[in-house]
Amino acid sequence: MLDRQTIRLQNNEEYTVFVGEHTEPEFRKLAASAESRKALFFVDENVYRLQADLVNFLKSLFNEPYEYIIPAGEPSKSLQQWYSLVDFALNCGVTRNTPVFAIGGGVTGDLSGYAASSIMRGLPLVHVPTTLLATVDSAIGGKTGINHTSGKNLIGSFYQPRAVVAPLRCLDTLPDEEFVCGFGEVLKYGAIADPDILNILKGKDLLSLRENTSLLGTLIQRSIKVKADVVMKDTRESSLRMILNYGHTFAHALEKICGYGTISHGQAVYMGMIAAGILSTELGADISASLIEQHHRAMGMEQAPLHISGRELTAAMQSDKKKQSDTLRFVVLKKYGRPYIESVKDTVMIEKTWDQATARIKELNES
Amino acid sequence: MLDRQTIRLQNNEEYTVFVGEHTEPEFRKLAASAESRKALFFVDENVYRLQADLVNFLKSLFNEPYEYIIPAGEPSKSLQQWYSLVDFALNCGVTRNTPVFAIGGGVTGDLSGYAASSIMRGLPLVHVPTTLLATVDSAIGGKTGINHTSGKNLIGSFYQPRAVVAPLRCLDTLPDEEFVCGFGEVLKYGAIADPDILNILKGKDLLSLRENTSLLGTLIQRSIKVKADVVMKDTRESSLRMILNYGHTFAHALEKICGYGTISHGQAVYMGMIAAGILSTELGADISASLIEQHHRAMGMEQAPLHISGRELTAAMQSDKKKQSDTLRFVVLKKYGRPYIESVKDTVMIEKTWDQATARIKELNES
Repeated sequence: MLDRQTIRLQNNEEYTVFVGEHTEPEFRKLAASAESRKALFFVDENVYRLQADLVNFLKSLFNEPYEYIIPAGEPSKSLQQWYSLVDFALNCGVTRNTPVFAIGGGVTGDLSGYAASSIMRGLPLVHVPTTLLATVDSAIGGKTGINHTSGKNLIGSFYQPRAVVAPLRCLDTLPDEEFVCGFGEVLKYGAIADPDILNILKGKDLLSLRENTSLLGTLIQRSIKVKADVVMKDTRESSLRMILNYGHTFAHALEKICGYGTISHGQAVYMGMIAAGILSTELGADISASLIEQHHRAMGMEQAPLHISGRELTAAMQSDKKKQSDTLRFVVLKKYGRPYIESVKDTVMIEKTWDQATARIKELNES
Repeated sequence: MLDRQTIRLQNNEEYTVFVGEHTEPEFRKLAASAESRKALFFVDENVYRLQADLVNFLKSLFNEPYEYIIPAGEPSKSLQQWYSLVDFALNCGVTRNTPVFAIGGGVTGDLSGYAASSIMRGLPLVHVPTTLLATVDSAIGGKTGINHTSGKNLIGSFYQPRAVVAPLRCLDTLPDEEFVCGFGEVLKYGAIADPDILNILKGKDLLSLRENTSLLGTLIQRSIKVKADVVMKDTRESSLRMILNYGHTFAHALEKICGYGTISHGQAVYMGMIAAGILSTELGADISASLIEQHHRAMGMEQAPLHISGRELTAAMQSDKKKQSDTLRFVVLKKYGRPYIESVKDTVMIEKTWDQATARIKELNES
């Protein structure tokens, strides 16, 4: 499999996603084409510490590099932090050609992307995702944003990067939990569009992939391809893009109740997929739950929050969505690779689905 | 001439610009297609007072109208005011379908447009320009933004509206100076692309057009057509769009030195066009300066700031542009309707041009 994919957008713009071990030539090419002596580097504080070589290499490619270190964690997706980046950039005397390198995970990418889109109506943005989750998900697709007291990502823009370059070696310094976290989305891509992903992972321990860069690269490329295919057809999230939310209606409600950070996004998506799988089966799907469930222990389900009832979860979904309509919409499967959207008015059905899901998780924990 | 024009963007999206005396049917159609019980109305405080009927009519079209009154004047293009709008909208419980009506002049449109683009990654935006300047210029083309301490419009986005609806009767309550101010841009469109505009205005007193709605409508439509044609070919301001800056390199430097608000934008552009005309002639153009200069008194040039030397103005241009390169770029004309870009390294030439322009303005004042 190639290490490069091109994303062509509906407005005929396009950009390249490069994932690999040797990213230096990619970065050199980007710097050479930048038409700017200056460059901005918005870097997650942990990455700044753990991947100093990478950051220093990138800075060495420009005559006037300016770096800004972003505190790790979700609270950085704030108005204050966003404005701090924008103000920093403008005080550096950037021009419209000055590239912005967003180096870090999802928080860094969402925040820096929104800042880049806001400065002089948009500076060229290069995403350098350093987590598995950001590489297969948030760095692809052009969503940027910060949080508001009333919800996550409510302030932001659709803004496509000039390029995405993911150095695989950054995954080496990722803690195990964060590495595994990314597999929530990888499994999701398998479920909605590329069942081979599920089959490749059959019988494999997720953590063992840390040592198998070649297979890991393949899984990442296949994942990006699924997301890119959807984004290319639906840049601004009208309808098709909704299939990317498989498992996520459950997951978002769960994260909201538990409080962000107490459960990883990957764990929430995994639990959401257990529920979405049950719902799909209820609606007549023919899918083998074991292709997801076999990764139960790897996903760290011993610590899963099983005390949340279907009633409580459904209420959280409704408070989230009541603004739009009374009906809840779920992504479900006919079979792996064949998703569709089901509108559900009968919330009792959803309550029961979630209660069955937590019962199943308990059963798997005890088996 | 029709009262409606369609702007097709490079991404194949399109929207309608309607200018006319009877805008109610347009607004009704927009409301009917909005798929939202809610609507946001961001209204300039003067318009709110002077055009209460219009605002109330618009509010009556939705079950849940939310209004926010924006203080008049350039200081409203601030981070604080922008966030105040965003926060207001999110606390109203908007959904992605909730339309935003920006009702006012350029400040309201730039500010509200940037807010609309930032809320949930973009709410549908309807520009309702109420000044001549906003109708022919800022409401068309999708530029939004707020100011930063280091310069105007440095924080913002490219964000196209769903529609532009300009009720001509709003111009009735516009002060004479603001009415005339819009003609800086109207004359500019004539100079760069549609010389008929200059000929139609030959021998006419600009203020007399207040009573001639039909001719005024024609001039507005022709002006919008020029801007729309450019925007359609160059949505994100790469190169062609630069021709819209005829007279503006001088005007921006002048506004910067005088302080925004001490000279109207129309007056600054008029003076800039006197200079750009001299520069064009110097470079071999065959243009009749009188087609612009005949509006000298109407543009209020008795009060023109003539004390600023060419040296001072050129220094201001360079401090503004030094970030990009050493060369200053000007839009000049071969003849009316035939603009091109000239890169000028010899700043003495620009100093002399400006000194000639102020001398000419003085001469016209005294004639």
